[in-house]
Amino acid sequence: MKHLAHLQLDIPKSENPRIVIIGGGFAGIQLAKGLKNKNFQVVMFDRNNYHTFQPLLYQVATAGLEPDSIAGALRPLFEKQTDFYFRMARVTGIDVDKRLIKTLVGEIDYDFLVLANGSKTNYFGNQTMMERTFPMKQIPQALDLRSHMLQNFEQSVMVKDDYEKDALTNFVVVGGGPTGVEVSGALGELKKHVLPKDYPELDFEIMKLHLVDAGPRLLSAMSEKSSEKAQKYLNNFDVDVKLNTLVKDYDGKKVILSDGTEIPARTVVWAAGVTGNLIEGIPEESIKGGRVAVDEFNKVVGTTNVYAIGDVSLMMTEDNPKGDPMVAQVAMQQGRLLAKNFVNQAKGREQVPFRYNDKGSMATIGRNKAVVDLPKFHFGGLFAWFVWMFIHLISIIGFRNRLVVFSNWVWNYLTYDRGTRLIIRTFVKDKKPKTS
Amino acid sequence: MKHLAHLQLDIPKSENPRIVIIGGGFAGIQLAKGLKNKNFQVVMFDRNNYHTFQPLLYQVATAGLEPDSIAGALRPLFEKQTDFYFRMARVTGIDVDKRLIKTLVGEIDYDFLVLANGSKTNYFGNQTMMERTFPMKQIPQALDLRSHMLQNFEQSVMVKDDYEKDALTNFVVVGGGPTGVEVSGALGELKKHVLPKDYPELDFEIMKLHLVDAGPRLLSAMSEKSSEKAQKYLNNFDVDVKLNTLVKDYDGKKVILSDGTEIPARTVVWAAGVTGNLIEGIPEESIKGGRVAVDEFNKVVGTTNVYAIGDVSLMMTEDNPKGDPMVAQVAMQQGRLLAKNFVNQAKGREQVPFRYNDKGSMATIGRNKAVVDLPKFHFGGLFAWFVWMFIHLISIIGFRNRLVVFSNWVWNYLTYDRGTRLIIRTFVKDKKPKTS
Repeated sequence: MKHLAHLQLDIPKSENPRIVIIGGGFAGIQLAKGLKNKNFQVVMFDRNNYHTFQPLLYQVATAGLEPDSIAGALRPLFEKQTDFYFRMARVTGIDVDKRLIKTLVGEIDYDFLVLANGSKTNYFGNQTMMERTFPMKQIPQALDLRSHMLQNFEQSVMVKDDYEKDALTNFVVVGGGPTGVEVSGALGELKKHVLPKDYPELDFEIMKLHLVDAGPRLLSAMSEKSSEKAQKYLNNFDVDVKLNTLVKDYDGKKVILSDGTEIPARTVVWAAGVTGNLIEGIPEESIKGGRVAVDEFNKVVGTTNVYAIGDVSLMMTEDNPKGDPMVAQVAMQQGRLLAKNFVNQAKGREQVPFRYNDKGSMATIGRNKAVVDLPKFHFGGLFAWFVWMFIHLISIIGFRNRLVVFSNWVWNYLTYDRGTRLIIRTFVKDKKPKTS
Repeated sequence: MKHLAHLQLDIPKSENPRIVIIGGGFAGIQLAKGLKNKNFQVVMFDRNNYHTFQPLLYQVATAGLEPDSIAGALRPLFEKQTDFYFRMARVTGIDVDKRLIKTLVGEIDYDFLVLANGSKTNYFGNQTMMERTFPMKQIPQALDLRSHMLQNFEQSVMVKDDYEKDALTNFVVVGGGPTGVEVSGALGELKKHVLPKDYPELDFEIMKLHLVDAGPRLLSAMSEKSSEKAQKYLNNFDVDVKLNTLVKDYDGKKVILSDGTEIPARTVVWAAGVTGNLIEGIPEESIKGGRVAVDEFNKVVGTTNVYAIGDVSLMMTEDNPKGDPMVAQVAMQQGRLLAKNFVNQAKGREQVPFRYNDKGSMATIGRNKAVVDLPKFHFGGLFAWFVWMFIHLISIIGFRNRLVVFSNWVWNYLTYDRGTRLIIRTFVKDKKPKTS
């Protein structure tokens, strides 16, 4: 945002108590929608004017979808909501004693504050990795990765040096969770079906794909059966899966693994973990493991009128001492329940404690293959892939996006092609933004 | 492109004479396609890996379409073409005596050279306008304009100062050719149908649209009837058209016109003209009015084996002393004919001189309105608008793009909405790229 000095937060006071929501993700949107015309003033802040459907971000990175297919502008979601205000502004801190939040465009007080600002890439303090690898949390990051990848292929037909050619065409993905597995599968598909048509001069045998995970199996949050299947599917796409392995060092050209293996690679995707987006001013005693500790009503431990929902929050109970997974379903359910509890509270009714209704989890691996864990049983293969597509389509916000995503998928499927191989953001490594 | 020192042009010599084409636009693509399997080696250079369908660029700028809808990757167009090489590299100069071209990744010799590198925005030497206004020739420029516009609206709900609020919501478009008219119409539609839903806090009466042209009528290349209609349609969209008027000065906040009018505006779109993309090494005597003078076979005057087609070329004949207009149709027809003439030349047959087959011209003005000039008659209104849509749809390269553009248009038409209002490239004025 430019000319910040000209700007000010100018939200009129209304009769309704003011709920300030920081973050327009899965959690914040559900909360704000649930508060529609319920006698609250809702003020939402986000640094972007859009919501990102993160489960499909990897398809933007691998040239399968355009950003507008997996993101939606926030304002249209609240078009007919009275006493609702959206402000595109970065929140820089909160003051729980004075009950106000600080942004780059000024301060604003609140009656209730809800932290719904999600998570960011976790580099576990490794500065080298932060500077040299590609995170996968935001749309600009996915576009950077796409541009980098396509530019490297354009360069690979112009290099003589074999080591450099290897480095330009190899990919190392760090982290065997859903993001790492899905990116690897998509890269496998690009290698098998898409890129060889574009670069007949290149021998695609040299393009090597590696997926590295520190743990003993892929998709550790899913069933062992699904982990095994995912690994098998990835192997069919020529992805070399290295388990119980860490990245020891990376100089931008060569990855050194804990088992001593050296891999020339100009592209390393960092999908090894996420951590909460913590804002300055959250009391020290409320922070647990990089997230904000909440009770079972999503109220931040040790504060008054401050709540946290979604990825940024950590709800540890006796039944569930590790808390729920950092996934969209938890965020949405917490957002919806908190809206109801605000109403309950206002009407003097009892509040309902949060229990995660786990509807299952899944991951897709390239063309035709996916793994699905439902509470009662697990399955994989082509049918799982159709289930994965169906669930993701119906989950995407807005009829238009669904239509665009569906058309793109049908097109890609039938033609073995990807529509969006344009290098529009010329990506320069030295200028890589430090956001995560 | 990074690591340039590592790169080299490594095009194997074949038995076929080598034709180097600089530029993968309308002209270059038609030429290269026409040379498919005709016993020539074709080497195409472009600084991008994609072709831009420029007639619809204004829809990207005004949030109607995503870039991938109006651009297509170049490589897939030539997938099955033997002895064809594409190199994404910037050409820095040519040496017509040594018969070689210079690029950032090395030099390469040619048997025939074809300049097909189009045109760029013409600021007529005005440095102030170049630095402070938005050109509309390339996809990144259109995305910059879109981001700038949407960011300004996000800011406008946070400013108190009335002058600043005016400046953030006003638009001045300079140049009444097709681009200026179409941008103005699209902005009018945004004002009327789209933005008020997003910003209920704003009074859209304050959003003023101005179209300024130095000449006595809009669309000066079209019929007078069409000029009049275009102006009437624009007036219906609340666009204030100022003819015989020049921009005298602009400090980034306030436009001063030659009639003394002062308009607060943070956004000025510069669509006042284009000029040829001239490469170093073109002989001085071959340059006429910022373009490359060619004979009626598109051969560059005063050179051997060097040709120029499309916008960069200027073919002045006795019948047509001003040359043909700088439009896609001319470029495509010249590209197709030059391919045939290369074959004629190789077979010792006579070459065919170029004559532009003018199929007509058109411009659209927002929803439901367009003007069309056919060689025999002129018409406007709703039917013209359908004709405009039909012609643009069938002209877009690739079935997939046609489908995507068509779906977007149907969606936008039925819902009075625009799907792509995301601010992804955070745009900072000071960092505005100096490309044009």
